[in-house]
Amino acid sequence: MFSAADHEFMTRALRLAQRGLYTTTPNPRVGCVVVHQGVVVGEGFHERAGDAHAETRALAQAGSRAQGATVYVTLEPCAHHGRTPPCADALVSAGVARVVVAMEDPNPLVAGRGLARLRAAGIQVDTGLLATEARELNIGFVARMSRGRPWVRVKSAASLDGRTALANGVSQWITGEAARRDVQHWRARACAILTGSGTVLADDPRLDVREIATPRQPRRIVVDSYLSIPVTARIFKQGETVVVTASDDTGALNALREAGVTVVEMGRPGGQVDLVRLMAWLAEQGVNELMVEAGATLNGALLEAGLIDELLLYLAPCLLGSTARGLFVLPEFTTMAQRITLDIRDVRAVGRDWRVLARVLPAKEA
Amino acid sequence: MFSAADHEFMTRALRLAQRGLYTTTPNPRVGCVVVHQGVVVGEGFHERAGDAHAETRALAQAGSRAQGATVYVTLEPCAHHGRTPPCADALVSAGVARVVVAMEDPNPLVAGRGLARLRAAGIQVDTGLLATEARELNIGFVARMSRGRPWVRVKSAASLDGRTALANGVSQWITGEAARRDVQHWRARACAILTGSGTVLADDPRLDVREIATPRQPRRIVVDSYLSIPVTARIFKQGETVVVTASDDTGALNALREAGVTVVEMGRPGGQVDLVRLMAWLAEQGVNELMVEAGATLNGALLEAGLIDELLLYLAPCLLGSTARGLFVLPEFTTMAQRITLDIRDVRAVGRDWRVLARVLPAKEA
Repeated sequence: MFSAADHEFMTRALRLAQRGLYTTTPNPRVGCVVVHQGVVVGEGFHERAGDAHAETRALAQAGSRAQGATVYVTLEPCAHHGRTPPCADALVSAGVARVVVAMEDPNPLVAGRGLARLRAAGIQVDTGLLATEARELNIGFVARMSRGRPWVRVKSAASLDGRTALANGVSQWITGEAARRDVQHWRARACAILTGSGTVLADDPRLDVREIATPRQPRRIVVDSYLSIPVTARIFKQGETVVVTASDDTGALNALREAGVTVVEMGRPGGQVDLVRLMAWLAEQGVNELMVEAGATLNGALLEAGLIDELLLYLAPCLLGSTARGLFVLPEFTTMAQRITLDIRDVRAVGRDWRVLARVLPAKEA
Repeated sequence: MFSAADHEFMTRALRLAQRGLYTTTPNPRVGCVVVHQGVVVGEGFHERAGDAHAETRALAQAGSRAQGATVYVTLEPCAHHGRTPPCADALVSAGVARVVVAMEDPNPLVAGRGLARLRAAGIQVDTGLLATEARELNIGFVARMSRGRPWVRVKSAASLDGRTALANGVSQWITGEAARRDVQHWRARACAILTGSGTVLADDPRLDVREIATPRQPRRIVVDSYLSIPVTARIFKQGETVVVTASDDTGALNALREAGVTVVEMGRPGGQVDLVRLMAWLAEQGVNELMVEAGATLNGALLEAGLIDELLLYLAPCLLGSTARGLFVLPEFTTMAQRITLDIRDVRAVGRDWRVLARVLPAKEA
């Protein structure tokens, strides 16, 4: 159904979409290429929410040459009036002959509507070209739309024997500069970064994007069930930080709010933050990709709750031994069948460290 | 100094030497190629102790064409009468014109003697071609000759979070079949396999080479400070097994000896086996490459004593959590400077697992 030329142009559209990697949140990254008689006459990508969609930009560049053209777009064109008019209508008005779409809208409530509108106007519509790549590019948006949760990526740095810090908490630095710089790219693409009170108390991190150019800082979310971190913490110094708590300590709540920190109460019976509710709430806040940079306790609680999708693990060429801290605090397993199974997707050297990207498999798939 | 042809022929000699990987112990793996006017007229490798050396075989094949030939040999030809006459003399007698040697004899007491004998006979001798590769091939022999200790390679299988077994000891199976098969090749090349009483009591392993063809089984060495393992253990069932102990329990000692097990007493003040003495003793027994397949206690003790050279770590795509057992029991580090630093040499997929080959760096190089 798809020609080599189709593959080439959709690859180009995906590469354009990639340019919105750090900026489109909460929108998806989308790229579009308009081809007239084998020649690219327009291209565009979505840059940030409120700005023009990829299709609008590409059609504007193509002008009258859009008439009879083939349009490659990485995500189903929208059929609804949002902050911009529906792209499906714009494609119909431009008189294009064919639209090739990598993947349908992941929102089950609107999926297929844009395609239907195009088809109703007599436009040839072909879908599914490089769908896997398109889905990966918007893995967070897909997760939020299809299951009401962000894509949760846990970043950790550990010794080769799986230890993230010495017993006394010292963790700086296990990995090298190249790995720490690599982390910045993952932060930049995340909509928000989640950490816990333990990490803030131990390391007082800023958790902002540094060393690489980005016009946008991800929001910082701190799980602090008992409001134990001070308002002087560096994470509150700049940008938007949200503290999620189970505490109703009015004094502590007010102190944070007076310091300009957003505090959200989300306790569950037992006194800790309800992590499942937290994820639903973050999705409501438009968080597609959530990066977690926390300690073994919060990481373990997330893993146990089935809320971790991906592990971004930097393994350093060193050993710290049995007394050092581990990666995930989990209840004791008594049979191997209880283990958490992973799908290791990518392993590569980053400086002298090794980066492992793995997906957590659902228990039933194990 | 070396031509492309020189590289080619030495590579061929190294590949020949490789054929003795499983069999030459306690001798080194050596390959030899005889080249007459650009044509290979003889080649050979050392197969097993007592059999002909590589040079002898290659010269025999070359016959009279050895006259005026260039000989490529991966290790300095011997100059002493061992179980076979000196190869240096054989090369002189054959009237070869030039000998290219990858590396000198690693035994400091005899290094250079073979080369000197060749030079004294007017033969051109060039050394150092592909020396690193030659050294790697005989890394155990080099270790034993140059420092009186075997090359100690610790094999472990762990989850991605560095856990080798559940808290209750269950460890079968963390890694997959491909990884377990890969282990067989490393066993086959080892002169001996070392384990501890804890592993024998928990897993009752055989620690022999299975599933791949080898005419030789490595010796099994069990560190059992208090003679706690029963004579019925499977490791005693076949082949040569040595128990190294700190115990003087005559009853237990006799029971083992009556069962045909060699028992060596090597205690140190404090009641445990003296691991430093053990390594020196293993070297005396002709052990070049020692493979360790033990638990976190013995592995940690070896690491702490500075006796581990290499880590052969299979990482499985799973997580076992904080209560599961770690890789190395070590005393608590209080600063990052105390960590054990590694040089990761090779990382590759083996089935669904990942194999990491890393060398332990001496503390001063860290």
